[in-house]
Amino acid sequence: MLKKHRIRKNHYSDSVALMRVAADLEMLPGIFQATAIMATEANLELARAVDLVDDFIEAQPNNLLIAVIAQDETAAAAAFAQAEMQMENVGSNGDSYATIELEAKSIAMSVERDPELNLALISCPGDYAAAEAKKALNLGLHVMLFSDNVSVEEEVDIKTIGLAKDLLVMGPDCGTAIINGLPLGFANVVADGPVGIVAASGTGLQQVSSLLSQWGTGISQAIGTGGRDLNAEVGGISMIQGLEALFEDDKTEVIVIVSKPPSDEVAEKILGFAQAGTKPVIACFLGYEYKKNDNIVQFARTLDDAAELAYAKVNNGNAPNRMNFKIGSVNETFNQNKNQKYVRGVYSGGTFCYEAQFILRDFLGPVWSSTPVEKAFQLKDSWTSQEHTIIDLGDDEFTQGRPHPMIDHRTRHERILQEAADPETAVILFDVVIGYGSHANPAAEILISIEGARNIAAKEKRQIYFVGFVCGTDLDPQNFTKQIETLKSGGVHLAESNTNAARLAASLIVTQSSQRN
Amino acid sequence: MLKKHRIRKNHYSDSVALMRVAADLEMLPGIFQATAIMATEANLELARAVDLVDDFIEAQPNNLLIAVIAQDETAAAAAFAQAEMQMENVGSNGDSYATIELEAKSIAMSVERDPELNLALISCPGDYAAAEAKKALNLGLHVMLFSDNVSVEEEVDIKTIGLAKDLLVMGPDCGTAIINGLPLGFANVVADGPVGIVAASGTGLQQVSSLLSQWGTGISQAIGTGGRDLNAEVGGISMIQGLEALFEDDKTEVIVIVSKPPSDEVAEKILGFAQAGTKPVIACFLGYEYKKNDNIVQFARTLDDAAELAYAKVNNGNAPNRMNFKIGSVNETFNQNKNQKYVRGVYSGGTFCYEAQFILRDFLGPVWSSTPVEKAFQLKDSWTSQEHTIIDLGDDEFTQGRPHPMIDHRTRHERILQEAADPETAVILFDVVIGYGSHANPAAEILISIEGARNIAAKEKRQIYFVGFVCGTDLDPQNFTKQIETLKSGGVHLAESNTNAARLAASLIVTQSSQRN
Repeated sequence: MLKKHRIRKNHYSDSVALMRVAADLEMLPGIFQATAIMATEANLELARAVDLVDDFIEAQPNNLLIAVIAQDETAAAAAFAQAEMQMENVGSNGDSYATIELEAKSIAMSVERDPELNLALISCPGDYAAAEAKKALNLGLHVMLFSDNVSVEEEVDIKTIGLAKDLLVMGPDCGTAIINGLPLGFANVVADGPVGIVAASGTGLQQVSSLLSQWGTGISQAIGTGGRDLNAEVGGISMIQGLEALFEDDKTEVIVIVSKPPSDEVAEKILGFAQAGTKPVIACFLGYEYKKNDNIVQFARTLDDAAELAYAKVNNGNAPNRMNFKIGSVNETFNQNKNQKYVRGVYSGGTFCYEAQFILRDFLGPVWSSTPVEKAFQLKDSWTSQEHTIIDLGDDEFTQGRPHPMIDHRTRHERILQEAADPETAVILFDVVIGYGSHANPAAEILISIEGARNIAAKEKRQIYFVGFVCGTDLDPQNFTKQIETLKSGGVHLAESNTNAARLAASLIVTQSSQRN
Repeated sequence: MLKKHRIRKNHYSDSVALMRVAADLEMLPGIFQATAIMATEANLELARAVDLVDDFIEAQPNNLLIAVIAQDETAAAAAFAQAEMQMENVGSNGDSYATIELEAKSIAMSVERDPELNLALISCPGDYAAAEAKKALNLGLHVMLFSDNVSVEEEVDIKTIGLAKDLLVMGPDCGTAIINGLPLGFANVVADGPVGIVAASGTGLQQVSSLLSQWGTGISQAIGTGGRDLNAEVGGISMIQGLEALFEDDKTEVIVIVSKPPSDEVAEKILGFAQAGTKPVIACFLGYEYKKNDNIVQFARTLDDAAELAYAKVNNGNAPNRMNFKIGSVNETFNQNKNQKYVRGVYSGGTFCYEAQFILRDFLGPVWSSTPVEKAFQLKDSWTSQEHTIIDLGDDEFTQGRPHPMIDHRTRHERILQEAADPETAVILFDVVIGYGSHANPAAEILISIEGARNIAAKEKRQIYFVGFVCGTDLDPQNFTKQIETLKSGGVHLAESNTNAARLAASLIVTQSSQRN
């Protein structure tokens, strides 16, 4: 086995594009592991942590580094050749947002070239991101800051500048937005319509916008604020600005805001602002204990409820025509072993992982996680489940040296097989997130894992329920219906939303256990 | 039809004893409605509201009033004769707590007669209750105040006096306690053991103590505080005193505290006091969003979890041997109609109604109630369910002019038939509470309703799931196992606790709907 790397100087590529390159390299024969990163100190440290590069390599932050662990020289050389080829194609690859304005060498140059530009999408490494964001604001551009590793002090700094200039800052770590129909980051292609969204959660935004689009009601704008915007330090600056923008946006009739529960103070501030507004607002602070409902602000405890309430608001109070997935095998009485008692959730979306935990905890008792809703239920070892466990494989801890599980399925594949080998696993619960930025056919990928898992369980005469859902639309390149059909063919119990998938998983546990003696 | 009443002067009877008398009168042929009350202004108003007595009748607060609506004079006369007979027997009726010291004409007289007395149980009408409680405290007695209709100002007043004299005030509206093995009010006969309970909820106390007793772990003391004790005004005076008493009680090794979620301030005060103590405390503030767990205080989100955590604490961390109720028909695929979508909970216990709501709301979406967890879901009309509805038939609104549903099943009978007639009802969920004060055979009573409901549904080719549980023990006069067997014979889907019954009801809805297309 060889550890090899290549450096390309003065080359800048977007991090999502690079994740794709690395994921593709790992599919090559004779390549065990691969990474493609901008060689910042933070990135190098991660690569070193998983032993992909040696302690000392000569690379500058503006260098592109490609590193592989290969069977032999030939395999390594083939990988570098493929990487070179893919790098050349970045910029012409139509289904990646990474194409947007990558050709320009600076924000200033882009604005000079096209004075009508009004939004900068910044996804350079965190170390430079704050400076780039300030440059963009000074040039009069709104900012979508995809980059993570931006400190909260920098975030407050950037957002305060934006506020003074009446410019919106989405992010940092803002993975999703849809502006005037253009999906940015990990986003779905959705129908045009009257519902505006402001969300501190990428997958929360994707879920609500996709459900509405699939039900025939579209989206006007979907604004991401970054996950920390509603923290006490930042105080919801972007969410307030987003609400203001949607109040003024003629296309928007109803507004949905989505976040994990903020502090009481920030919640009051945002709800107060919403109540003073002119349009109905659906507030979905997942699981938040709210005190009052009124005509302007309505509360939704789940993402599914948020989408349904928004649908009703723009459809004369009617409920959406829900999709039905009749799965024959829910009727089968699996002979689940008495020890098969637990749900194991293997998520790629952080908000889905969070929502599943708070839906399940009152239902099944304690739910463990590496990113727990309640600190008391922090997994001792993130790589090993105990009792009911719901994990977010998109969390930093699991993605060190590997692309995000929405792009690269291997970490999840291994975890699914591991859960199947555990005699206490009754149900494996998962999300499939499609849209821009995601894998080209994630349902097919996960089906391979499910088959493997079924084989492992069958050897010990066990059967496992698989419960999943697809977040996306029929307009997405991967096509919602195709993904559903693929999962159906593998006997997956399907739900329409994460909310309902979590409920179905728990229900299978409860009804199964009531059938045993 | 005749409206008749009798007055018995200078007679005092306990209100639970009177409820029994009224319930028995209503079972007589030719009696449509009956009440037996102390003729206070508040009681008369309630009787007038349901048209049982005329606007003006000559009765004093110290008069016992018996009123009936009867078919004819003969029926009315027979009823009054039976009532007289029962009144004479009050005091010798072995299965009612009402026997305790009722013979004495005043608290002072009782203490004179037996100087070792240290607890006064006060259940006179609310108007006099505060004064009686103060008398008892001045005589150096702890107080259990069963009476309701005591103002919060009076409560603070009484409890402040108790605190100064180091005497415990349980109540007002404290329906349940177990002191040194003696059940007071509506309480279960439980095994003696190491777990102490302080609860602001009567049925919460009954649930935790009964589960522990059935699992083979007993109760040292169970102290009720009254439902308002943890409000901001009262500030948890009784709960703090109860904790203190249990810290000092040699028999108590582990403490469980039970309440609806208090304000943050009161919660912090109580948890701070618990943390400074010497014994492990399980805190069950139903659904409370707690922030930290430590070695001394552990949090339980449900009553079932609270009992299980307490069990583990005194049994080397082991889980209890749970009862299993294998019900064949969970396996049957009922041909539930597509419109059969909703759970209808018809409870007799207020805390059970509350717990079921917060368990179900994240699972099924909005849950309506006449006593809602969230104000937004207040039923427009308490007597008519909409979508998912969980009601507490023990709430004042339903008991005007009628005894509590734990004693008198008629209101619940009618409601069950009404729910069965609604084509949208999929599951009917109920509690059966046994123990002192409760009906002699409630399972048999509810079975009559279930049969009636099944007939109504069958006429329209519908089938309804019935999900229930029994709160009580095999030591109770009604016998837990006998009650369970009775419900089993009626095809009820049984769970071990309210927590699990609510979960099972919701699971049946979710898995049923995933089987339909």
